[in-house]
Amino acid sequence: MTDHRRRLGGWGFEGESLLPSPELLAWLDTRIGPAAHPVPAAAAAPPELPAEDLGMLPAKVSTDPLDRLAHARGQGLVDVLRVRSGPVPALPDGVCRPTDTDEVEAVLRTCSSRNIRVIPWGGGTSVTGGVNVLAGDAPALSLDLERLSGCSQLDEHSGLATFGPGTTGPGVEAALAGHDLTLGHFPQSWELATVGGWAATRSSGQESLGYGRIEDMVAGLELVAPGGRLRVPTGPASAAGPDLGRFIMGSEGRFGVITEVTLRVRQRPDQTVVAGAMLPDLEHGLEAVRELVVNGAPLTMIRLSDAPETEVAMAVGLGRSRMAPLVERWLALHGITDDACLMLFGATGDQDGVDDCLRHARAIIRSRRGVSLGRRPGRQWLRDRFRHPYLRESLLDIGYATDTLETAAPWSSALALRDAMTEAIANTLTGENERVAVLCHVSHPYRDGASLYFTFFFRCAASCEETISRWARIKRAATDQLVTAGATLSHHHGIGQWHAPWLKSEIGAEGMAVIEAAAARLDPAGIMNPHVLLNPEDRLEL
Amino acid sequence: MTDHRRRLGGWGFEGESLLPSPELLAWLDTRIGPAAHPVPAAAAAPPELPAEDLGMLPAKVSTDPLDRLAHARGQGLVDVLRVRSGPVPALPDGVCRPTDTDEVEAVLRTCSSRNIRVIPWGGGTSVTGGVNVLAGDAPALSLDLERLSGCSQLDEHSGLATFGPGTTGPGVEAALAGHDLTLGHFPQSWELATVGGWAATRSSGQESLGYGRIEDMVAGLELVAPGGRLRVPTGPASAAGPDLGRFIMGSEGRFGVITEVTLRVRQRPDQTVVAGAMLPDLEHGLEAVRELVVNGAPLTMIRLSDAPETEVAMAVGLGRSRMAPLVERWLALHGITDDACLMLFGATGDQDGVDDCLRHARAIIRSRRGVSLGRRPGRQWLRDRFRHPYLRESLLDIGYATDTLETAAPWSSALALRDAMTEAIANTLTGENERVAVLCHVSHPYRDGASLYFTFFFRCAASCEETISRWARIKRAATDQLVTAGATLSHHHGIGQWHAPWLKSEIGAEGMAVIEAAAARLDPAGIMNPHVLLNPEDRLEL
Repeated sequence: MTDHRRRLGGWGFEGESLLPSPELLAWLDTRIGPAAHPVPAAAAAPPELPAEDLGMLPAKVSTDPLDRLAHARGQGLVDVLRVRSGPVPALPDGVCRPTDTDEVEAVLRTCSSRNIRVIPWGGGTSVTGGVNVLAGDAPALSLDLERLSGCSQLDEHSGLATFGPGTTGPGVEAALAGHDLTLGHFPQSWELATVGGWAATRSSGQESLGYGRIEDMVAGLELVAPGGRLRVPTGPASAAGPDLGRFIMGSEGRFGVITEVTLRVRQRPDQTVVAGAMLPDLEHGLEAVRELVVNGAPLTMIRLSDAPETEVAMAVGLGRSRMAPLVERWLALHGITDDACLMLFGATGDQDGVDDCLRHARAIIRSRRGVSLGRRPGRQWLRDRFRHPYLRESLLDIGYATDTLETAAPWSSALALRDAMTEAIANTLTGENERVAVLCHVSHPYRDGASLYFTFFFRCAASCEETISRWARIKRAATDQLVTAGATLSHHHGIGQWHAPWLKSEIGAEGMAVIEAAAARLDPAGIMNPHVLLNPEDRLEL
Repeated sequence: MTDHRRRLGGWGFEGESLLPSPELLAWLDTRIGPAAHPVPAAAAAPPELPAEDLGMLPAKVSTDPLDRLAHARGQGLVDVLRVRSGPVPALPDGVCRPTDTDEVEAVLRTCSSRNIRVIPWGGGTSVTGGVNVLAGDAPALSLDLERLSGCSQLDEHSGLATFGPGTTGPGVEAALAGHDLTLGHFPQSWELATVGGWAATRSSGQESLGYGRIEDMVAGLELVAPGGRLRVPTGPASAAGPDLGRFIMGSEGRFGVITEVTLRVRQRPDQTVVAGAMLPDLEHGLEAVRELVVNGAPLTMIRLSDAPETEVAMAVGLGRSRMAPLVERWLALHGITDDACLMLFGATGDQDGVDDCLRHARAIIRSRRGVSLGRRPGRQWLRDRFRHPYLRESLLDIGYATDTLETAAPWSSALALRDAMTEAIANTLTGENERVAVLCHVSHPYRDGASLYFTFFFRCAASCEETISRWARIKRAATDQLVTAGATLSHHHGIGQWHAPWLKSEIGAEGMAVIEAAAARLDPAGIMNPHVLLNPEDRLEL
């Protein structure tokens, strides 16, 4: 049962959890060894960190210690470890929940004149240190946008809906459901993440193949910066100079606060169906995904796991089923054995449309030596699609750490990049008890390439600092490898604090300078989320 | 016969023309009266404007007077009138044709240190004053990118092709044809316009419904600015901070010179088929277009003419045909008479795919009371799609002036905007002999709205200055109306010099400031195409 109170020091809501199956635990034991150091749950009492007085702000500010703690960190592994085990290096001095755009503007103006750092807070689900509070000379304010939420305008004929930045995924869909509409943006963080956060970090949802990335959905937006308001007018397309909306998206709070977003919405589909197939190996799998995107019927999602991830998925999904040996034999008959790669592919619409689309997809999959697994794996995935993040908390409870990172690459380099990244992640830790298991999947394919998403597991150390240090070593090696390969630092997690040291390698000094120039113009005092994106200090272990 | 030498003071190549049909002339005579003041063809001798010495530049500079004249103006109506009738207010002091990116960089560095204005020149097809040279204190250099052309890299597996900025539309398709690939970007200016110009102005082609806008096609690019090089890495998608590519596109030369573009390409389709239909009125027509985009099969183009444009199209297209009375009677039987709106809709692919797609489209069109016209109107349109611009020259030859302007709007306001714009354009001139005829069509539909493209005709005055003044009055009234309606200043023509006075009304002071800040960083001396985009002076009559 969920009481919809956010859990402190972990994903999701209190009362919700996802326990690792015995099969997953057995797999972890084999691959990285037994867990030895459980991580304690978060202390009920917040750390004693004194707060600066923010009573001069033109809006109510909460200084409740638990409220401050709840706004100190995002949802990265280090964030959870810090809040569970401490020390939490800093808390915001206050949490402000503005009730309208004018109030946001007034608060930013005052903060700007008094040199108070402002960290915009949507769902607080950043996994890149994007909302983390750091110790510093200036006071820090968390600007929680939860009261700027809901649908303020709906143009059904044009399929345009305007939302406050604090609207969560379920909030968006609930507002649209009565009109038989959907946004179709379903990131794994959907239950907690918000419209403003999606736009500020260039989010991408699990059905991006059909519905597009958040950038494709945003038809207009408003930014309130310390220097003034910037409204990107709503329209289907424009050639009136540079695309300011696309420049503001991805600015991660550095330019100001996104206070309104107009989104392109669509008719809600009758059904969403996801089917499964098994490909003989990753090469055939990638080729099938590419073919499905370039020449296939309009699927809304495709997800292809590499062999290790497939092994885990099959163990967890089929492990306790009497079908397992049968399925294995059936696959072996088709030449699909150790290198097997699981593919999920989905379509939305009415019964006939979905059936047609999946049939077309299966034909392409067969042409790449794939074997259909029917709809059962898809049902399972749909059921748990937003629950997987809870697993991290259950694993920490027993002493396993897990995290993810992601990138994207053209088709011609995807396979080599997956191999190089897997090696970099797996082989970075060299100490005893420091084995790392790595899984990879493609979940956002495009005509010219795809995202690569890596999940890795390692054992917690005796101390929180050492666990964090292990993680940071992996993260540095993996990110270095991305830069070496010329792949992007992120496909949809963003830059935040943790990727910032590498951003210059990706976009160059001039690219940094352009963003800096805009930030300096919109936020002359430099108060807006000042440690993300442009600030190159390595803060992985803070 | 075409000798592929560009015509001076007019569209296209010498030796090519498109003459107005007797039916069009009769229509013009009825609607705006007889033409009285033919505009002379361009004088062979360029105006005598002395050139500054640009011998210090680290690249060869042409000072040939005809070469300078050929790079003085774009392809707007005023440009053609100026070059035909004079006076041409300014010529570039030289034309430089760099042979590689290093040379571009060296030239910009020298120009920056010596305060020489640089106007990047692709195809010179701007219709917004985007490449126009103005008189000023600083010398002006036209940087013609024709030698930076061709395909330098092709990744067939990922569907990525890298081009020099000076590659024209035919150049792109020729480079891809041997690999059975296409870009699918077909603006009306396709024969002359270039990859760099498309990216710098956010171009959109006639098949944008299927292939997307140029922004959707660009996977990576390089900008050389006086302040340094900026490379936006090639990739399918990224969340690594703001989208710098989308910010550079649309900067119209203010940020620097786009020296390389990597484009997403696709399999060349077996065939491109365009069919026609007639809708009872614009309201039904717009509703059919919306329905086709939202729920239809994957068409690659849709074009819907309003009743006046349909009247012209039918007169020109069917006028001399014995079929005309039959078609009229057939349409009348279906209740389609004076308000009839012509729709063209196209699909690409193999025979079966195209047939399926068009059949699906016809069903939707019928549901909006549309009547199929078969494939003949589409064949005609495909044959002439790049030749229409020649018509302007033939009309000027006899004393009619014509120009176009365009915008985009959500579906819910498209019809009202079309009416308001038509009225503003038609009723601005109030003198005797100053009637204006206005046509409108939708040619770039989206899920949430569509472009509106206006063509207008008026009679040339006895003097070139007065003809330009008539045009400027229309243009000001039309642009004011766009701003009043909250519609964008341009869907695909850009801002240039002529729309710049209104840009602040669209993107606000902060929007202007962000672009200015980036320009100041990349081009500290302010030498890059300094009169476009950000410079608010009204230059319509220059």
